[in-house]
Amino acid sequence: MDKSAKKISEHGYPGLLIAIEGTDGAGRSTQIELLRDWLAIEGYGVLISEWKTSRLIAKAIDQAKERNLLHAYTFSLLYASDFADRLEHVIVPALKAGMIVLTDRYTYTAYSRDVVRGASQEWIRKLYDFAPKPDLVFYLKMPVEMLLKRIIGSSGLDYYESGRDIGLSTDFYESFKIYQRKILTEYSKMEKEFSFETVDGTLPVDALQSEMRKKVKELLDSGIIK
Amino acid sequence: MDKSAKKISEHGYPGLLIAIEGTDGAGRSTQIELLRDWLAIEGYGVLISEWKTSRLIAKAIDQAKERNLLHAYTFSLLYASDFADRLEHVIVPALKAGMIVLTDRYTYTAYSRDVVRGASQEWIRKLYDFAPKPDLVFYLKMPVEMLLKRIIGSSGLDYYESGRDIGLSTDFYESFKIYQRKILTEYSKMEKEFSFETVDGTLPVDALQSEMRKKVKELLDSGIIK
Repeated sequence: MDKSAKKISEHGYPGLLIAIEGTDGAGRSTQIELLRDWLAIEGYGVLISEWKTSRLIAKAIDQAKERNLLHAYTFSLLYASDFADRLEHVIVPALKAGMIVLTDRYTYTAYSRDVVRGASQEWIRKLYDFAPKPDLVFYLKMPVEMLLKRIIGSSGLDYYESGRDIGLSTDFYESFKIYQRKILTEYSKMEKEFSFETVDGTLPVDALQSEMRKKVKELLDSGIIK
Repeated sequence: MDKSAKKISEHGYPGLLIAIEGTDGAGRSTQIELLRDWLAIEGYGVLISEWKTSRLIAKAIDQAKERNLLHAYTFSLLYASDFADRLEHVIVPALKAGMIVLTDRYTYTAYSRDVVRGASQEWIRKLYDFAPKPDLVFYLKMPVEMLLKRIIGSSGLDYYESGRDIGLSTDFYESFKIYQRKILTEYSKMEKEFSFETVDGTLPVDALQSEMRKKVKELLDSGIIK
């Protein structure tokens, strides 16, 4: 490790922030767990933080979804509240403590989803501008056809993840395809803007993990973490 | 009424949106009820909408306050979620139905309070830019000394309304004074920017109400409402 070439994180904390992005079915959680296991063995303190898990607001979001109550702005703002709560109570403390934080989804999930749901791109980005900028963003890219197979084969089609509530189509399968295509289009637009490290989600689990570890290793070797 | 000089609301709905602003103890709810009674007698459909009353989020806010969990951004975003939910389910439907909506506090409450609590002025205004612009904003202006007497004489000092949680002073009374002065300073800055109709909150209830009715009457006579 070349200590003299030490980089400094844009977020300014001693820890490291790595976001893993991609739609449902892209294999995020599997890859994150494998990264966590490897980093722990390497001796790093690691924390995984998932989207929509604040003890404060996650329940309110679920209740609202059940009653089909979420209009566009309420939807965006509730998710942002949840994110802010988690950021302040989990992510930032861990970064201050010098840990490696792996986030399962990050603000980019909101940037893509909320724009598809009608929010303006400018508004949603401003909304989240209090969020620390990650040191690395992985984007697990998958073609929509493969996503369809994976999701139907596991959890089935979710009402919201299919965009049924925004009236794309009365047909569940059609609605899902249209919605996910729109989401993927938004992610594609962001690849360059946010310097995503795009990885091929269709690769076998191990091959994908090797590729991701290589990128994380490069980051660690840059001496960015103390 | 001069129909030819008909004005059009900036929000574009057939109804009328009147916001009543001012800190706690300024007499907002008394004045709003008197306005409602008068307008109902005059034959208008009237709806009162209060700050922080969305069935969806108000409970989450209260729970978080109890546990002293609210950091700056979570605080702002939760209130904004509450507002968005109320806007979409109560205020906008009423405006579409051609009613007069009297709101007890509006976005200006967030503009003052959240800035005092550390949010940037630009961020908080952008956050609420989905909110319809009121046709009239009353600002019930009161000197801090009188507010103190009124509040201590009624409900007592609230932990949040005293800014105790943001560490202004360990003394409750001192903290309240400092916090409310900061809030009043923010309101003063907004008087011109948002064309507040500033009214003297120290006037007797009836005198204040007459003044407010006069302003509302002018608005109604302008033919802005159908």
